[in-house]
Amino acid sequence: MVNVHELLLTEQARLVKGFEEYDGAGCFRVSEWTRSELGGGRACVLEGGRVFERAGVNVSLVHGREVPATIAQTFPGTKGRPYVATGISMVTHPLNPYAPAMHANFRYFAVEGAPWWFGGGCDLTPMYGFAEDAVHFHRTLQTWCGPRYEEWKRACDDYFTIAHRGEMRGIGGVFFDRLAEEGPGGFERCLALVEAGLATIFPAYLPILDRRVRMPYGGRQREWQLARRGRYVEFNLVYDRGTRFGLQTRGNIEAILMSMPPLARWGFELVPEPGSPESEVADFLKPRDWASPAGLATT
Amino acid sequence: MVNVHELLLTEQARLVKGFEEYDGAGCFRVSEWTRSELGGGRACVLEGGRVFERAGVNVSLVHGREVPATIAQTFPGTKGRPYVATGISMVTHPLNPYAPAMHANFRYFAVEGAPWWFGGGCDLTPMYGFAEDAVHFHRTLQTWCGPRYEEWKRACDDYFTIAHRGEMRGIGGVFFDRLAEEGPGGFERCLALVEAGLATIFPAYLPILDRRVRMPYGGRQREWQLARRGRYVEFNLVYDRGTRFGLQTRGNIEAILMSMPPLARWGFELVPEPGSPESEVADFLKPRDWASPAGLATT
Repeated sequence: MVNVHELLLTEQARLVKGFEEYDGAGCFRVSEWTRSELGGGRACVLEGGRVFERAGVNVSLVHGREVPATIAQTFPGTKGRPYVATGISMVTHPLNPYAPAMHANFRYFAVEGAPWWFGGGCDLTPMYGFAEDAVHFHRTLQTWCGPRYEEWKRACDDYFTIAHRGEMRGIGGVFFDRLAEEGPGGFERCLALVEAGLATIFPAYLPILDRRVRMPYGGRQREWQLARRGRYVEFNLVYDRGTRFGLQTRGNIEAILMSMPPLARWGFELVPEPGSPESEVADFLKPRDWASPAGLATT
Repeated sequence: MVNVHELLLTEQARLVKGFEEYDGAGCFRVSEWTRSELGGGRACVLEGGRVFERAGVNVSLVHGREVPATIAQTFPGTKGRPYVATGISMVTHPLNPYAPAMHANFRYFAVEGAPWWFGGGCDLTPMYGFAEDAVHFHRTLQTWCGPRYEEWKRACDDYFTIAHRGEMRGIGGVFFDRLAEEGPGGFERCLALVEAGLATIFPAYLPILDRRVRMPYGGRQREWQLARRGRYVEFNLVYDRGTRFGLQTRGNIEAILMSMPPLARWGFELVPEPGSPESEVADFLKPRDWASPAGLATT
């Protein structure tokens, strides 16, 4: 447990350094919190950068005398038992509307006298559709996940659905939960997979930023970005399990809502001009087999 | 039933005309929707006005073969019965950060072979604390509600709480549900109370706008307004029963989310400068007995 938490803190420092260097202008602020009955965490947030309007990387370590009700329902045999959980989560909201937002998290849950497991995932939320970005992102994740990619990709598509809009939040990625392997070396193999996932974030995301962050844009693209970020807010506050769990348990609200975009807008019955790049986005976001050689077939 | 719906449509036309005249520049767009299995509605929205960055007034008439689960749980004897419901809801988001946002709604619910009832309310969300505005607003509502004011005011304070922040959304107002009166003339008396409520909106709100919409402001006040609107979004998507019910039943999403502010922001650990007007807002919003002669005692 301590090892997982230490690994996540080391990874947080590496990611923060990497994002800061990539941004070239903004600096991360560090905010630590502790609550005796719950645990604590370390939130690192960069705001108003050259590349990132906001980027945040959080690590937390929480514990309790009884697993939360939502966990007990999902994982039989955990009810009423003490637990410890540690996780890392990160979100970027780039300034350039052509650059996609990225989200990733990895978590470890250990229940006294019951199984432990890992969970996590990584997904991309573009405001404009660039097929080459989606192909690069998914193929890089596929290289990390190997034979697990298909199942984890489908789980991600299922999760990042804005049900009330009948729309996807982004182009997905991978999502897994209850990753555990029994027997000798099982824990180490799971942890290695998580470490490999953390090592995949920069190669999956930064080459996409390289292509997008210097593209010229104007007010129209900014307005569209803010409207798409409105959808992001809707997903996070209405559906995201981590956010809703955090709000219900009254964790560190600022750390939980670090995932929110810095600015978002809502317009009444906004319909993009037919034939415009904006009008193609909803269709672009439909789940597709991006990692396949064709990379464009709708799944 | 038809009479209530017709009244609400007439009131919608009057309110739309009044807000449009008050704005002096923006015009309402009208959007009608129907869904055979659910009903229909008429949404009127003004965007980019001189006074109102957004103002919306919706009327809907919905029906179903069985009352929704959330209603059946709350109102015994309604389970599995056909129902008809009609309502009017309105939201304003003024451009000037010193001018408060206003929300009001009135609804009528009729279940076959079971009691009917009215519900509704009206509340104010200032971004800056002006005691004279709060006193005027609450006293005007008190004049309308009479002996019911105390109970309905408390219900409103209970409702408009952002639990995860430990903060109020605004300075409240009044909120009621299950308003029904049996016996001869009971329905007419309830309807008259709702009509009086609708007639109270302009006298409660417009004198406050008169004082605020010409106040000079700058970037600092605008930023603060956008951050407070972020709280408004959090309340609506996480707690508001009407919004959550609408999203779950997949009503007209654009009409349901008309209540969202046009623009909102989130900052990490935003703390207003000590001693600034912004630093006093959270305290100002705590429930107070605004309608009493003193008008300032914390309840």
